[in-house]
Amino acid sequence: MDAEIRSQDTRTEPLAIVCGGGAVPAAVAEAALRAGRRVVLFAIRGWADPELVARFPHHWIALGQLGRFVRLARAENCREVVFIGSALRPSLRSMRFDLAALRHLPKAMAMFRGGDDHLLTATARLFEDYGFRLLGAHEVAPEILMPEGAMGQLQPGARENADIARALALIHAIGPFDIGQGAVVADQYVLAVEAAEGTDNMLARIVELRRLGRIPTPVGVGVLVKAPKPGQDNRFDLPAIGPKTVAEVARAGLAGLAVIAGRTIVAEPALVALAAQRAKIFVVGLRDAPR
Amino acid sequence: MDAEIRSQDTRTEPLAIVCGGGAVPAAVAEAALRAGRRVVLFAIRGWADPELVARFPHHWIALGQLGRFVRLARAENCREVVFIGSALRPSLRSMRFDLAALRHLPKAMAMFRGGDDHLLTATARLFEDYGFRLLGAHEVAPEILMPEGAMGQLQPGARENADIARALALIHAIGPFDIGQGAVVADQYVLAVEAAEGTDNMLARIVELRRLGRIPTPVGVGVLVKAPKPGQDNRFDLPAIGPKTVAEVARAGLAGLAVIAGRTIVAEPALVALAAQRAKIFVVGLRDAPR
Repeated sequence: MDAEIRSQDTRTEPLAIVCGGGAVPAAVAEAALRAGRRVVLFAIRGWADPELVARFPHHWIALGQLGRFVRLARAENCREVVFIGSALRPSLRSMRFDLAALRHLPKAMAMFRGGDDHLLTATARLFEDYGFRLLGAHEVAPEILMPEGAMGQLQPGARENADIARALALIHAIGPFDIGQGAVVADQYVLAVEAAEGTDNMLARIVELRRLGRIPTPVGVGVLVKAPKPGQDNRFDLPAIGPKTVAEVARAGLAGLAVIAGRTIVAEPALVALAAQRAKIFVVGLRDAPR
Repeated sequence: MDAEIRSQDTRTEPLAIVCGGGAVPAAVAEAALRAGRRVVLFAIRGWADPELVARFPHHWIALGQLGRFVRLARAENCREVVFIGSALRPSLRSMRFDLAALRHLPKAMAMFRGGDDHLLTATARLFEDYGFRLLGAHEVAPEILMPEGAMGQLQPGARENADIARALALIHAIGPFDIGQGAVVADQYVLAVEAAEGTDNMLARIVELRRLGRIPTPVGVGVLVKAPKPGQDNRFDLPAIGPKTVAEVARAGLAGLAVIAGRTIVAEPALVALAAQRAKIFVVGLRDAPR
């Protein structure tokens, strides 16, 4: 594991947390608070969960309201920013650009060409132009990272390890194309490759194909593997799993789920272990390959 | 183009056509008849279209009834066999093995490990063990192959050509994993990669993601590319397109569809051109890369 563990941060300026969807943003905010750091959430309208956001000091912003973010974050005295939570790659038409963003419009338009990595790197640069420092969620909350080894009692067997190896090789091969971070392999047969649809939809597809008799392997065979793309910037868009992922893997009739230890966010570790135990699937953190 | 064009075959022994789903098997049978060759269809129960099959001399067989096929094909005096039509990779449980197949069971089980290529190559060897010769559909019906250039009047533009190039590179990269033969790329962003779900389902996914606002590119941008895997045996499982594919590409809001000339089957070329014209999408046969 090579996660950068920062010493406990006691600076008085609050951490700005730009929140996408899911349970992870709240987990990061709580971890930062536990570490003695104040937080202000900037909840993205349509993505962030209002109930979770309400538990912390927060502002709502629309996607593209860069000027509003800069103004509010400066007023809050924030200098460090974390991007966290599931981000559905937005449709250009759904975006509202404010004046500050419009000034960057040519850059913003370029962000939408190419894949996710490109979009995220360009976004980071935009924030840095305004004097903010971007941190990875794992830097402020290292305890949200997946540990090495199995969560819960089940371990992958020989067949599962072979499927994991094939899925990892596949994810590595598609790395240059900046696609998704997931694949499903069952008994060496690649059932699904994740692209724009996201992990949830990919797993729902397995459920449907199985119902139609188009999955050649029986229930209990196969793995979901999620791994960051090669060369991916760890400051955003690390793969994330939670109890819901475990439930979906079980529903898809797979044996388990493998991710990269230290480079995967686990939303609610205790619930993940419990869900894995109940569903009788394994959840394993693989030792990261040397980069 | 390097399609092997065989001289018109006037042998009296009929050609055995093992039929999967879709309109292509009937197109191949008609082409063989036009070339002066008699045909006997071996329609796979659950896959082949009963209406199309009824137009030709035929027998119904269940998947796994190797012994029944061998007996019937020998009685019909067939020595050459073509496999054609969409084959949904079967679930092991849905298969019924007859005695001849059971004798090959260890081999048959091994066929189900790994991807489609492996399955198909193993199937071919099984038939050859029984003294049959496997032909590619294009060898008996070269006119069913996609020609080079555009069908209909629309041509891909510069953006479309760039998307086609990216999709081809992606399909090449996943070749060793023996996955699907298709990908959707829009403005350099990989929207979908085909695996076990098939092209129809992949395109339906684009329709759904677009409805949810999760496709960043506007309607009219993006391409579907289908290409054989590198090193694929041309005798079976060439990518196929038909009027339905064109309709689905249009419904997915893409600009067009590109396939490899000489290595793609076109079910009903006239209808494909007409459908493309009506839907205002391009359908183009790319010059095959040297292998």
